[in-house]
Amino acid sequence: MGSYDAMLDANARFVEGFDQGDAQLPPNRPVAVLTCIDARVVPPLFLGLGIGDAHVLRNAGGRASDDALRSLIISSQLLGTRQLMVIHHTDCGMLTFTNEDAWTMLEDATGTSARDIDFLPFSDVEASLREDVRTIRDNPFIPKDAEVTGWVYDVRTGRVTQVEDA
Amino acid sequence: MGSYDAMLDANARFVEGFDQGDAQLPPNRPVAVLTCIDARVVPPLFLGLGIGDAHVLRNAGGRASDDALRSLIISSQLLGTRQLMVIHHTDCGMLTFTNEDAWTMLEDATGTSARDIDFLPFSDVEASLREDVRTIRDNPFIPKDAEVTGWVYDVRTGRVTQVEDA
Repeated sequence: MGSYDAMLDANARFVEGFDQGDAQLPPNRPVAVLTCIDARVVPPLFLGLGIGDAHVLRNAGGRASDDALRSLIISSQLLGTRQLMVIHHTDCGMLTFTNEDAWTMLEDATGTSARDIDFLPFSDVEASLREDVRTIRDNPFIPKDAEVTGWVYDVRTGRVTQVEDA
Repeated sequence: MGSYDAMLDANARFVEGFDQGDAQLPPNRPVAVLTCIDARVVPPLFLGLGIGDAHVLRNAGGRASDDALRSLIISSQLLGTRQLMVIHHTDCGMLTFTNEDAWTMLEDATGTSARDIDFLPFSDVEASLREDVRTIRDNPFIPKDAEVTGWVYDVRTGRVTQVEDA
């Protein structure tokens, strides 16, 4: 399996030069980033985050799902993050289908109804971003002094732009 | 805000040298990695994943939550990944508390009961890993030809070790 070999070779080289500095369980910076699983979106590279610097949460779309809220509550309340950055991105796969499309495709592929799954697709990146920022701010378990901000990453330029202030 | 400045400076340098190569929406490799939000766990670095190479999913613990399954179904069925790697890690924060601890702490901090939230903590990294691998394999919407494997990342050495074969 070529993919595993390449990753394990890279890991062997990484281990040789491994230096995690002073990194402990709580992040060096009080930052948690919530973003998409997209392969072109690589937060350590485009935000300059090294080992130990920040929490990174990723799901399809970078949505403020119940599970993202679970992770953000742990990140902020148990491990002290207070700058919660939601980063959506241009050309997101979540813009390319509806729940109806996904349900039909999955029922055709598997013979099982997927209609109880909300895949959280969206049709407007900035609108979904503002909705997710609001959902996080409104959650009763997110610290009142946490800053929740919204950003868009452009996959063609690498630039991240703030869309929603704290 | 020092954290934002440092990230935006890093982003400006990243944009200057930006080259995403041929990266398109589907990943270059048929790989999706599910791992923890921990700041010391940086998949692009320890697996050698560049821009466009692989989907990366992250939540507290790297658990096979409903939301992780949502993302893995999109990743595999809509975007073609077939090597689904679950990576838990040593010294995980999820080993340090129970749901009862989190509920008490949150109710004390906010005055609101959090007892309807399962924070998905665990007491044994390899056991949680095997449970999550099984949950993904058993999901009816994950392709039958997908390989689901389990790995542990050691935060003291940087080494990733396979614990559960496909």
